[in-house]
Amino acid sequence: MIRVGILGCGRIGNVHATSLLQIQSAKLVAVADAVPEAASVCAKRFNVEARTIDGIIHGADIDAVIIASPSPTHFDLIHAVAGSKKPIFCEKPIDMSSERVRTCIATVEAAGVPFMTGFNQRFDPHFGALQQRLASGEIGNVETVTITSRDPAPPPIEYLKGSGGIFRDMMIHDFDLARFLLGENPIRIFATGSALVDPAIRDMGDVDTAVAILTTKSGKICQISNSRRATYGYDQRLEVHGSEGMLRVSNVHESLVESATHNGFTMPVAKPFFLERFGPAYLAEMQHFINCINAGTAPTPNANDGLCAQLIADAANESLARGEPVDINY
Amino acid sequence: MIRVGILGCGRIGNVHATSLLQIQSAKLVAVADAVPEAASVCAKRFNVEARTIDGIIHGADIDAVIIASPSPTHFDLIHAVAGSKKPIFCEKPIDMSSERVRTCIATVEAAGVPFMTGFNQRFDPHFGALQQRLASGEIGNVETVTITSRDPAPPPIEYLKGSGGIFRDMMIHDFDLARFLLGENPIRIFATGSALVDPAIRDMGDVDTAVAILTTKSGKICQISNSRRATYGYDQRLEVHGSEGMLRVSNVHESLVESATHNGFTMPVAKPFFLERFGPAYLAEMQHFINCINAGTAPTPNANDGLCAQLIADAANESLARGEPVDINY
Amino acid sequence: MIRVGILGCGRIGNVHATSLLQIQSAKLVAVADAVPEAASVCAKRFNVEARTIDGIIHGADIDAVIIASPSPTHFDLIHAVAGSKKPIFCEKPIDMSSERVRTCIATVEAAGVPFMTGFNQRFDPHFGALQQRLASGEIGNVETVTITSRDPAPPPIEYLKGSGGIFRDMMIHDFDLARFLLGENPIRIFATGSALVDPAIRDMGDVDTAVAILTTKSGKICQISNSRRATYGYDQRLEVHGSEGMLRVSNVHESLVESATHNGFTMPVAKPFFLERFGPAYLAEMQHFINCINAGTAPTPNANDGLCAQLIADAANESLARGEPVDINY
Amino acid sequence: MIRVGILGCGRIGNVHATSLLQIQSAKLVAVADAVPEAASVCAKRFNVEARTIDGIIHGADIDAVIIASPSPTHFDLIHAVAGSKKPIFCEKPIDMSSERVRTCIATVEAAGVPFMTGFNQRFDPHFGALQQRLASGEIGNVETVTITSRDPAPPPIEYLKGSGGIFRDMMIHDFDLARFLLGENPIRIFATGSALVDPAIRDMGDVDTAVAILTTKSGKICQISNSRRATYGYDQRLEVHGSEGMLRVSNVHESLVESATHNGFTMPVAKPFFLERFGPAYLAEMQHFINCINAGTAPTPNANDGLCAQLIADAANESLARGEPVDINY
Repeated sequence: MIRVGILGCGRIGNVHATSLLQIQSAKLVAVADAVPEAASVCAKRFNVEARTIDGIIHGADIDAVIIASPSPTHFDLIHAVAGSKKPIFCEKPIDMSSERVRTCIATVEAAGVPFMTGFNQRFDPHFGALQQRLASGEIGNVETVTITSRDPAPPPIEYLKGSGGIFRDMMIHDFDLARFLLGENPIRIFATGSALVDPAIRDMGDVDTAVAILTTKSGKICQISNSRRATYGYDQRLEVHGSEGMLRVSNVHESLVESATHNGFTMPVAKPFFLERFGPAYLAEMQHFINCINAGTAPTPNANDGLCAQLIADAANESLARGEPVDINY
Repeated sequence: MIRVGILGCGRIGNVHATSLLQIQSAKLVAVADAVPEAASVCAKRFNVEARTIDGIIHGADIDAVIIASPSPTHFDLIHAVAGSKKPIFCEKPIDMSSERVRTCIATVEAAGVPFMTGFNQRFDPHFGALQQRLASGEIGNVETVTITSRDPAPPPIEYLKGSGGIFRDMMIHDFDLARFLLGENPIRIFATGSALVDPAIRDMGDVDTAVAILTTKSGKICQISNSRRATYGYDQRLEVHGSEGMLRVSNVHESLVESATHNGFTMPVAKPFFLERFGPAYLAEMQHFINCINAGTAPTPNANDGLCAQLIADAANESLARGEPVDINY
Repeated sequence: MIRVGILGCGRIGNVHATSLLQIQSAKLVAVADAVPEAASVCAKRFNVEARTIDGIIHGADIDAVIIASPSPTHFDLIHAVAGSKKPIFCEKPIDMSSERVRTCIATVEAAGVPFMTGFNQRFDPHFGALQQRLASGEIGNVETVTITSRDPAPPPIEYLKGSGGIFRDMMIHDFDLARFLLGENPIRIFATGSALVDPAIRDMGDVDTAVAILTTKSGKICQISNSRRATYGYDQRLEVHGSEGMLRVSNVHESLVESATHNGFTMPVAKPFFLERFGPAYLAEMQHFINCINAGTAPTPNANDGLCAQLIADAANESLARGEPVDINY
Repeated sequence: MIRVGILGCGRIGNVHATSLLQIQSAKLVAVADAVPEAASVCAKRFNVEARTIDGIIHGADIDAVIIASPSPTHFDLIHAVAGSKKPIFCEKPIDMSSERVRTCIATVEAAGVPFMTGFNQRFDPHFGALQQRLASGEIGNVETVTITSRDPAPPPIEYLKGSGGIFRDMMIHDFDLARFLLGENPIRIFATGSALVDPAIRDMGDVDTAVAILTTKSGKICQISNSRRATYGYDQRLEVHGSEGMLRVSNVHESLVESATHNGFTMPVAKPFFLERFGPAYLAEMQHFINCINAGTAPTPNANDGLCAQLIADAANESLARGEPVDINY
């Protein structure tokens, strides 16, 4: 039984707490938040203890720590938890600065604690099954990967200002999936984009519609398409071509009720957003983290996976700014 | 080169004339109609001769005759064409009276002329491919057949009065498909129905929504569902279960353009009616007829197939009237 | 917080226990089983108390009882729990004898306790959403309902011997769905079937492939198709036609990973069986039961719904035996 | 009645001859080929006259000329036919040199003859319907266009040597579709690719797997993906996102027969190659050409459309060679 503490009682902290309820070999013991009231509410909801952050980090009754607090706090918390030699599950991004991510990796490695980065989409039952079938050689050698990701609507402008831009905030998930599916690091990227959804996004120097082409040393190619808008739900699709065929995952609809009327044959919109679409993925990633701690194996995606996605996002940003392809140096 | 004459220049006569244009080994020579103006218009359209009915039946330049005139005229025309020893393609039904169909069969057999009944749905590329894969054993032994057929809207009441009822007018196509797919004659039928679409149909003693269960000696089962109304196009579907799996054909949409909006993911309605849905089937059945004449082989479905479907329709009518299952005697 | 006791620690008792874990307003307190070891194992798994059956029925700390024991025990347990004035959730069938079901209904009504029958398919997210859209008038007046249900493989012959036949054991779910969707009681049924899957099933006088046509007073029609075999997973589909269109639910696939190779475009098989296919339905029905107790409202489907489905199954059995349609008297 | 002559009796000349058979307002009069035997065979097949090329160009009984001869002959033939003041339908590419295409445009314009370029995919019923719905504003303003085109297998190396590379030979169709769907000229392109299918293609300096990103002045984005290999048929898909939703066209399967077995639910492969997939498009484009001549209107796509696609292909080639995005100057 792995006893877990959660740092950060916002939306995502509550998601992880809910997942832990369904994992028989784990037990949520305590939660903490910089805002004590948030911790109280969450603790009450899950019938656990509200504690200080230090109380969790140094708690003798805590075997593992989930860091689900705001991104700028990750760096210090990772160092503190590593200091107390507890396994860490940290939400992405580890840090907005790749240099600081490298520091975190060094610290965690020196401490010898297991570390998992929260790229939950790898654990989506559909995406995960695709990757396994790919890895099994079902369609031969991977040649091209196409990733489509469209959010239902842009987040508030205030949020976007601190987001680091669409590549670091949104396409970073796709960069991780690209690595997951290509089985090889992309070494060069061309990224471009437009602000077609909201002029305010253009005014702040960001884009809301973006595409990228990534290439690997062996010549594999990945195309990514992002938009901050989709009227038909949260659009999340993968398509992989190999030497012997294709594997793809289409959208998950709100239900399987199809209607047929004079308007045509209609399936419901896609699940509205990430909590609905990737609900099972949040549970599965937490199960993987707990399983790894129990088994003494290293969880993936790890800190280096977090770093690599960050480096690709940095290169994408540079490509957009310079208007030309950019090498990705790991 | 098979030289063809068409008797009957209505809608279906024109369909067959169009098909002949696309068949390299056939040539339409002349058309005739009880209404001379109809023949003239059709002859002009296809750049062929308008002739009297006798002129076609006895024409030395005519190798085969298509009977596409109103059903009540079929009996006499079949006898006349058989008398001139020409191969016959006759639209369904051969006759509304099963006894008179038996007479036609005897006449045609005595004359030794090839005879084909126009159950065109067997020649639909999708339905036909399903039957071939079934016959090849792809899903093992056939166990159940499910046929769905819904017209877009009821025909005029005047037409319905002379139609012989929904089983003889509409479900008869499905009875032929049932035999085609079961590979065995159904021996018993239970049929029932309601008038849900138009009270005028109830008032004339007919139904517009009908279902039937047919069983064969070996225990195979066929379910058929008909309606005179479908808001989403002409609904034509097959589903066959065998010991090793299922084969099915869904609807053919007006186009493959799918939209996704806040209303959901929408495919266009099904093709509107039989001319659009079964256009390729009309061409393929005519090609089969011509090929058989050229090769000296017997075309199918033949006159006996026409009779069998008629006998099942008779039994369905009786079942509806008596409220109980009825044996089918061939 | 509703404190719940479970009678019966077999597969389905464990399913309900798992559901209760995820319902915040309920708490599983104790479990019991005629076989004490079964209760112990289950109690340990869910970290609750193993108790005697009487200990649960009369427990002052138990607010509601789930009867998940073998069918022949339902009658006595319902009477005992009603005697202690506790709300009852009872797995279907209430009893194999319709007369005894009527007795149960009288007892439960006299005791004034809430009673819910476990027809979980009504709570499937897809089936439930279809019914709600139907009830909202989205496709006008309901005209025909088509239900397809095919199990992956026959149960053991020993099980079948005590099952009451395919209509009482398997098609009973579809009879309940028929009532749920028609919004009206069927008054007449024609049912037939064959033993095509296993000769041993024929030898015991049962069938493994069965179809039925049900009709209502207003002329609505329901077609049901069952088989004890499906090579492609657990086949569960609904299709409803109304005056303005169609609503349908197709199968739930094991994943949404589609492949395209020289063999074609392939989606995975359907979920293997009812626990996987209707997992969410088990949770939702239990949530409904708990919500109703909390709100003081009557849960559905209730005991009368259980009786009605049973009466239809009785009539189906009689129809099969007699080879003709049978009236259903409620 | 437009009387037509065809120059070039290869595969595509025969396709156009077949189309003309089905167009009531047109009549194929004569065919010609640099290889007289080829003209004879074709003339016999379609029961028309085999003539010299000059005999067609200057024939008083020829109202319009189809140029379906090898690409290097187009330039001279366009000039000759323009000289005889006959309307021209010319297969793409008009010429491999954009400069020579400009010369052709000038010649044709000076002669005042109608000129149509054979980008038949615009006339595919599905692609065409998508474009019309797009143009009607169904999904608001166009934002992104995604085009997927994968051939079943690479053509012979000998063919590839004279093809001008994948962008001029294969992706040029997609460049035309991009312009058709974007409703605006792309002004910049980034293209890259790999030789993953056949090392011999790498050795000759070409690629067999290629992607491109095109951007327009207003910020619209187009992604294109090409491969010389697809194991599951000829892969031809469009997807367009607008401010209010998406429109897309998926593949056309060989038939609509779906199977379900222990292997899953399988649809047949896509139509094998362009003649099967775009058969209806060849007929529709010819119908458009004839209609325009009859109506005295200008056919599209015209010579300038041919030029624009060529210029984009030139820029793609340059982008691949230089490894960076390139401006497209019209």
